Amino acid sequence: MDQKTPDLQGPVCALPNKHKDKIVLGHGSGGKMMADLIKDIFYARLENPTLLAGNDAGVVELTDGIAIAVSTDAHVVSPLFFPGGDIGRLAVSGTVNDVAMVGATPLYLSASFILEEGLEMEILDKVVESMQEAADEADVEIICGDTKVVSRGEADGLYIATTGVGLLDPSIHIAGNQAKPGDQVIISGTIGDHGIAVLEARGELGFHTELRSDVAPLNHLIEEMLAASKGIHVLRDPTRGGVASALNEIARQSEVGIILDESALPIKPEVAGACEMLGFDPLYIANEGKLLALVCPEDADRVMEAMRKSAYGKDAALIGHVEDQPSGRLLMRTPLGSTRIVDVLAGELLPRIC
Amino acid sequence: MDQKTPDLQGPVCALPNKHKDKIVLGHGSGGKMMADLIKDIFYARLENPTLLAGNDAGVVELTDGIAIAVSTDAHVVSPLFFPGGDIGRLAVSGTVNDVAMVGATPLYLSASFILEEGLEMEILDKVVESMQEAADEADVEIICGDTKVVSRGEADGLYIATTGVGLLDPSIHIAGNQAKPGDQVIISGTIGDHGIAVLEARGELGFHTELRSDVAPLNHLIEEMLAASKGIHVLRDPTRGGVASALNEIARQSEVGIILDESALPIKPEVAGACEMLGFDPLYIANEGKLLALVCPEDADRVMEAMRKSAYGKDAALIGHVEDQPSGRLLMRTPLGSTRIVDVLAGELLPRIC
Repeated sequence: MDQKTPDLQGPVCALPNKHKDKIVLGHGSGGKMMADLIKDIFYARLENPTLLAGNDAGVVELTDGIAIAVSTDAHVVSPLFFPGGDIGRLAVSGTVNDVAMVGATPLYLSASFILEEGLEMEILDKVVESMQEAADEADVEIICGDTKVVSRGEADGLYIATTGVGLLDPSIHIAGNQAKPGDQVIISGTIGDHGIAVLEARGELGFHTELRSDVAPLNHLIEEMLAASKGIHVLRDPTRGGVASALNEIARQSEVGIILDESALPIKPEVAGACEMLGFDPLYIANEGKLLALVCPEDADRVMEAMRKSAYGKDAALIGHVEDQPSGRLLMRTPLGSTRIVDVLAGELLPRIC
Repeated sequence: MDQKTPDLQGPVCALPNKHKDKIVLGHGSGGKMMADLIKDIFYARLENPTLLAGNDAGVVELTDGIAIAVSTDAHVVSPLFFPGGDIGRLAVSGTVNDVAMVGATPLYLSASFILEEGLEMEILDKVVESMQEAADEADVEIICGDTKVVSRGEADGLYIATTGVGLLDPSIHIAGNQAKPGDQVIISGTIGDHGIAVLEARGELGFHTELRSDVAPLNHLIEEMLAASKGIHVLRDPTRGGVASALNEIARQSEVGIILDESALPIKPEVAGACEMLGFDPLYIANEGKLLALVCPEDADRVMEAMRKSAYGKDAALIGHVEDQPSGRLLMRTPLGSTRIVDVLAGELLPRIC
């Protein structure tokens, strides 16, 4: 794979020193603080080109001519159950999606559980049942696991770390550094549904919506997209940090400018309303069943058509395009014709959203 | 792989009902309660033959003729640093070892971190540095990772879940159900070192020893063993639950009786002394750098000789043998010539030992 070390030094100013001495919630937000933590500690200590490529999954050669993609995620979402899903469906879908986002076919999953003493067995059983349902939907097998128990007050109910292994066709080179000027930016559906649904489940909205999390495995959607086009350059699921953070990362990795069309962004009225009331920008809200695709201009229509035939892509929309400048930046064109910079998330937005 | 569903129904009597409704510390002990939890929830819900084989790693075919082994572990050891190691070295070694215990060559690791708000950055940095050192020693690469942050009181410092992927020579069939009457039982060194070293670090011994944890990656030792013999039937690392739990599991999986020779068990005086004072049986104490090998009788000497040339196998000892009866049982022959049943661990021994 032709991948280079991404420059994670974003445009946001330096953090106060106290954030450099201790872990704070913002280090898990998916934004600038997390990127700095990854750069300063993980990339610095674990230096290897696969990790430094900074994609959703690490791509490596297993043996002659056989490439695999491996991705891992810890899941700490609170509460464990929310409208549209639960930590089990989230754990399986999140890892399946990360493996699929480099164009690989997810096949096998591992699952490590950290259980808090006192957790109801019935809750664990429901979560594991939900994991199997999501695994069935994604056609993957959970082939190994581990269980640790910690005392009361040393975890919050249960955490699940999942890792996925997928097989990659060596002719596929989908990565964050592959975006090219002219590429069209497609989103598979409405943004912000997961984050707002979890807030509702926490009772933090202050009002009731019918909104459900979008959490879903997207590997079959991606199969349809790959069958429709060989011109898909980047795929990414805009989870923590939302669409804004994902596209900023791609702009930096590919050294291109990405220009979004604000009026084209698909947003449900409930999400728009909740964001308005809470002072959030939906571009930073987590999604768990959406993907961004950066596609060569000739194939964009064909890819969108293929996506719209799938349940998880029926609201696919063209939301922007790639230019060669300003390198490493995400811009938003407003309906009035003005343009503003959309930065990575600077601090902490919603802890334990996934 | 010729693997069958293990019968996890051990000989210990039924648990009180309250343990069936809620998670208690004993569910993480590596003994009977954990086996019941795995059977009742994980095996019941995630039914697939790879998982049900109950080996340290799941073995699957990735594509025609290419088999991989995948294993995962969450690490919650307390304290994070202890004589001879830390949670980072433990996380890498534990996963490398599980992959190697089916005869596979570990190649790639993933690492998911759950960090508690307030964790000192310096501690995280030391742990990650230690992970890289262990990865270098084992010749594996950490190719992907994830970081989640939870609020104070929702974790205890930091937890790490690691998953390993290894390549398996399809001619190798090392598994828990492959033990055969006549096999010799070899241990790679002294038992109980890790568990007692962690207790010392917790200040729970009440006296000082020079004991260090044995935590180490054993994949290179296993390479030497595999080069010396094609008659290695079972490999297992006796971690949580110790040698007694590991051998009980193998006896059940292979439907054989395993007879240990008490006087042959290598135990350091500090471990023997600590166990005597605390009322522990060293057979149930966790090891993190030891392996059990069940080897055909003709090759036992050759395998021991190969092991003793390696730093992690220099104290290798022949500690028992396999008979066809009593099926599913572990027996201990005492120096006086009597024989007693050694059961799996029934309750909770040492929480958060790994």
